[in-house]
Amino acid sequence: MQNHIDALFSPRSVAVIGASDNPNKVGGRPIHYLNRFGFAGKVFPVNPGRAQIQGHRAYPSLGAIGEVPDAVVIAVSGEATLAQVRQCSAAGVKAAVVMASGFAETGDAGRARQAELVAAANAGGMRLIGPNAQGSASFASGAVLNFSTMFMEVAPADGPIAIISQSGAASVMPYALLRQAGFGVRYLVATGNDADLDACTMAEAVAGDDGIRLILVYLESLSNPDKLARAAAIARERGASVVVLKSGSSQRGAVAAASHTGAMVGNDAAIDGFLARHGIWRARDMGEFIRATPLYLQGHRPGAGRTVVMSHSGAVGVMAADLAERAGLPLTELAPATQQGLAGILPEFGTANNPLDMTAALLNQADMFPRVLDVLGTDAQADMVMIGIPVAGPGYDVDALARDAAAFLRRHGKPLVVSAPQQTVRDQFAGHGVPTYVTEADAIAALQQYAAHRRLRDAVADLPSPAPVAYAGRGLLDEHESLALLARHGVPVVPHRLCETSDEAVAAFAALGGGAMVVKGCAACVPHKSEHGLVRLGLADAAGVRRAAEDCLATLARLEVERPRVVVGRMVKGRHEFALGVTVDPALGPLVMIGEGGTLLELRRDIVTLLAPFTEQDVRDACGRLRLAPLFAGYRDLPALDLDALAAAAVALGDFALRYRASLKAVDINPLMVMPAGEGVIAVDAVVEMA
Amino acid sequence: MQNHIDALFSPRSVAVIGASDNPNKVGGRPIHYLNRFGFAGKVFPVNPGRAQIQGHRAYPSLGAIGEVPDAVVIAVSGEATLAQVRQCSAAGVKAAVVMASGFAETGDAGRARQAELVAAANAGGMRLIGPNAQGSASFASGAVLNFSTMFMEVAPADGPIAIISQSGAASVMPYALLRQAGFGVRYLVATGNDADLDACTMAEAVAGDDGIRLILVYLESLSNPDKLARAAAIARERGASVVVLKSGSSQRGAVAAASHTGAMVGNDAAIDGFLARHGIWRARDMGEFIRATPLYLQGHRPGAGRTVVMSHSGAVGVMAADLAERAGLPLTELAPATQQGLAGILPEFGTANNPLDMTAALLNQADMFPRVLDVLGTDAQADMVMIGIPVAGPGYDVDALARDAAAFLRRHGKPLVVSAPQQTVRDQFAGHGVPTYVTEADAIAALQQYAAHRRLRDAVADLPSPAPVAYAGRGLLDEHESLALLARHGVPVVPHRLCETSDEAVAAFAALGGGAMVVKGCAACVPHKSEHGLVRLGLADAAGVRRAAEDCLATLARLEVERPRVVVGRMVKGRHEFALGVTVDPALGPLVMIGEGGTLLELRRDIVTLLAPFTEQDVRDACGRLRLAPLFAGYRDLPALDLDALAAAAVALGDFALRYRASLKAVDINPLMVMPAGEGVIAVDAVVEMA
Repeated sequence: MQNHIDALFSPRSVAVIGASDNPNKVGGRPIHYLNRFGFAGKVFPVNPGRAQIQGHRAYPSLGAIGEVPDAVVIAVSGEATLAQVRQCSAAGVKAAVVMASGFAETGDAGRARQAELVAAANAGGMRLIGPNAQGSASFASGAVLNFSTMFMEVAPADGPIAIISQSGAASVMPYALLRQAGFGVRYLVATGNDADLDACTMAEAVAGDDGIRLILVYLESLSNPDKLARAAAIARERGASVVVLKSGSSQRGAVAAASHTGAMVGNDAAIDGFLARHGIWRARDMGEFIRATPLYLQGHRPGAGRTVVMSHSGAVGVMAADLAERAGLPLTELAPATQQGLAGILPEFGTANNPLDMTAALLNQADMFPRVLDVLGTDAQADMVMIGIPVAGPGYDVDALARDAAAFLRRHGKPLVVSAPQQTVRDQFAGHGVPTYVTEADAIAALQQYAAHRRLRDAVADLPSPAPVAYAGRGLLDEHESLALLARHGVPVVPHRLCETSDEAVAAFAALGGGAMVVKGCAACVPHKSEHGLVRLGLADAAGVRRAAEDCLATLARLEVERPRVVVGRMVKGRHEFALGVTVDPALGPLVMIGEGGTLLELRRDIVTLLAPFTEQDVRDACGRLRLAPLFAGYRDLPALDLDALAAAAVALGDFALRYRASLKAVDINPLMVMPAGEGVIAVDAVVEMA
Repeated sequence: MQNHIDALFSPRSVAVIGASDNPNKVGGRPIHYLNRFGFAGKVFPVNPGRAQIQGHRAYPSLGAIGEVPDAVVIAVSGEATLAQVRQCSAAGVKAAVVMASGFAETGDAGRARQAELVAAANAGGMRLIGPNAQGSASFASGAVLNFSTMFMEVAPADGPIAIISQSGAASVMPYALLRQAGFGVRYLVATGNDADLDACTMAEAVAGDDGIRLILVYLESLSNPDKLARAAAIARERGASVVVLKSGSSQRGAVAAASHTGAMVGNDAAIDGFLARHGIWRARDMGEFIRATPLYLQGHRPGAGRTVVMSHSGAVGVMAADLAERAGLPLTELAPATQQGLAGILPEFGTANNPLDMTAALLNQADMFPRVLDVLGTDAQADMVMIGIPVAGPGYDVDALARDAAAFLRRHGKPLVVSAPQQTVRDQFAGHGVPTYVTEADAIAALQQYAAHRRLRDAVADLPSPAPVAYAGRGLLDEHESLALLARHGVPVVPHRLCETSDEAVAAFAALGGGAMVVKGCAACVPHKSEHGLVRLGLADAAGVRRAAEDCLATLARLEVERPRVVVGRMVKGRHEFALGVTVDPALGPLVMIGEGGTLLELRRDIVTLLAPFTEQDVRDACGRLRLAPLFAGYRDLPALDLDALAAAAVALGDFALRYRASLKAVDINPLMVMPAGEGVIAVDAVVEMA
């Protein structure tokens, strides 16, 4: 594989089929870029109508070149593309960029043409980017096999960033923003229809480059999760970071994405779970995609993310504190030694708390700022620093402040950012390598993302997945079969019996030890039992059980259920009703939902989701994000709930779902009665749905 | 009043007491600015040590000038300030800016000095900005009585914006951001300790200037709500907008604000309610403070905010759709005529849906863009337009696109914004007066804010407030007194009787018509009844009521309650348990809370709040934002709930709270049983707390 990638990023020779002398045509622009951005290999324009193109000898066909180029750019129309791909593949070309549109994005016929195209390429061992692709670029080698106009406007420079995107526009947008902010970009690949060397595969390819510290991936569909996971693992191993902007999370966005790339967008929560599990940050928009870039590139340890905000303006401190609380970024409590140290440096009316108000004394005492920074640098509870410079001008030695901030970064290796509305102030700090932001909101958001992402990355663990099993049943399983199946796999379920007659029901009542009972009609084809009066609660004696069983069996017979049966079960009252659920994402596997149960589950939506496999600790952590989380520790006069049992049940359900993932569609356990700590959980109703 | 303001913003003469020849000293900078920014009046530096200051004749004292200046800047130290204020006031100066610190922000002694300062000023009819203030500025007249260094760095220009701030830094931050983006600012006032002419008063003063279209107000405490309301009313009358950035909403932010300005920050939800009622937008950070500025200044009608997103990139459409859904900005359904019109213009592979994908055909067909815009301009369901230009370069006639966008604004008067990562592209659109943003996220956020703010402004209504009444009771009222008081004011409460003996309880059982009853111990000093076993539910007969009453009375006696009594009430089961609550903000009045009730209210926090007075329609609208809102229309097989009765009860509670606002501290009605539509609501437990 790697030689296909090398052929794209550092080819010895490139042919451009459909070459143009006009640098503003699709077939002319790559040649222009190869000429302009330092490509040292050979360039072979292919165009039967011209002898010379942009300073290079042109050839009437690939065959006429006399040698086989490592890579080709195919810039002819959609109809002519297939023949060119065949020829290149047969000749032994290693990689091609196919620019023409008119394939999968146009519908079924185009999808078939695209499959044919990929097959033709692969037949001779050639791999391709595209079709419908803007192409690839390495600004290290100057191999720019890409027709975007952006590089005409915003000059490239090599650097530690790779941008991989299914969309051309979404590849050059972060490029423009990063380059305008002074960051270098090494790789930029827009894979278009993503048919062969897809975005995830290209992410894996660039992840191995030691010079790359940050990989930005824009996706509209998660085409190749295994490759993306591999890319993240390779990057993580080297301490590099992967940020994904996966769009199409909204209903209308998903529709737009489907009509844009022809791809379905998948289950958004499953994608969240997948990315988190692999230590990949999911950015929600273009701003977040690039915001923490300078922090990633510097790579200082963010510790627990406990931040100190300092400014010579009280207002900045107040605003930053508001923003930090909203973003979930902890502002540290300064250690007593730090407070003492600061009190000796700050003026009397300054604030040696966090946020730290240096007041206008910042202007008069040149040594105050570096001394404050040094005190913070040695406080083990101060992990990161945000400095707000709302205003500067005569009297402010901004260059000295910038040098002091840079010295702090060198000396203490803790993340530090500056926010300043004045461009001139930002330029001075940036000139000393200090990350800068226009507003406190951006600065706080960048710190929060960086610290949270590092935590995510550090928490990545390899969990074994159980061996798959087939299940004979299909469609909705009835309550008894559902409960029995779950019970066999470790989910605690209510003691119950399946009965075909009222006599059996009465016997079950005795066998279950008496006490309050529930009788329910049991038929897979009648999932909404209560609507048909098929749920009878609080039956205290054998006579009540008999009557209820008779009623339910009669109702089922009236509903023309083939084999009417009832479930007789103990009536269980938990301290609180939770629910567990599973949906199976075809690509990413089972997603387990945990949350408050009952009939209002979907309105309250106090739920968390985890992609299986996961650990009991993962469940406990996730449940800490529920609004009802305080119930687990005991809330007011309510006893603590059995979180451990809930975690064990969720893990068992996840393992069950992994085992049956080939045939499982969904599981719905609601309610799951959660008892006081130490007393367990019990599923009292469940539906398992097989495909 | 207005002449004090005129004295600040367009004085005929200004004296600077403590004047310096050095433009970088606090006493030198205002003179420098008066010289530099076109102030046409007289400038009198006052400094006994110099004959000449920055080109002006200097005077040893105010008295030596020989005339009374309209305004003075007092730039001497805190200790010397009071004497100067006295002198100015006695001489007949109309307004002063007091720059010295060392007043209320330092504690109680400083607060006393500050009160003395204001009294001294007002004694002679003088008003002041400050103390501890950066000062005021009018860039229309050049009257810059302000010592910020910012105007040295970022040159002023007159324009339709006023910035009023309690903080100096927070006044020049938006100034710098707006000026760097090319917007003109007319007024900038930083009121510091806000002691006399406070920020709200200054907002009122600038609201009357016909040249002002947007008033930005930064507050750490809402010092003078009536003045701010008045400012909003004056601005609204003229179609101008007020945006407030009120910081200190977080716990730590509030602490920082208190140590910064010495002011308490108040109840954040009450402030939300107050600002919303007066049609003021509350910005959450500096970015949001200024983001929608070009939309406010153009002032086009945003209609219902239904937006069309268009781009030549599918990815931009997908991202914008995600962002719009997250921001709550509705993307419009295009009318059939529009879709037809667009289909005739767009290429076959373009998308005549919303988001609208013009594809790269945008480059080849010069007339496509203006024709598409004209079709959208005439669609009555398309209120606003966002255009994403992710990339441009050779082949793109950006100037033509910008002219077309500007023509759309002129012709159709609908808000339109452009997002583009390339600075050069933004500059071209901005050059034609088209609002531009770096990212889709900012563009969508600006449109959402503008449309929502206009809706808020248009909905402002004057509601009468009931006449105040005094209440004799103090502290916590017992359940019976609470329920009775609420019932007298129109809140439906459960039928019940207060009984001192078990005989009375049995009589009450009969009087209430029998059926299931509740007996509860009733004592103001025992608010947590259930913890003491003082709540007995589901009593079916007289004997049960007697036993429960005896038990409760005995328990109360054991708890040494002075006059043990029980409440006997009907047992009411609603369809769902809600809650109503009141807290009274000392400055803003009663805030009514409506939400899901029960013991988990504070965990679920499915609540909305409204500042009284409000209408039943306000309650219905607010309840539409509850997670449980679908219950009101009927959810699954549950009947619709009685939203009208809930609204009526909330309005009654709000009126009650307004009436007793002088003595009321809080009301807690939980649960409020809500019945199916048409069957009402019933408060079954309540505590009223008087001060």
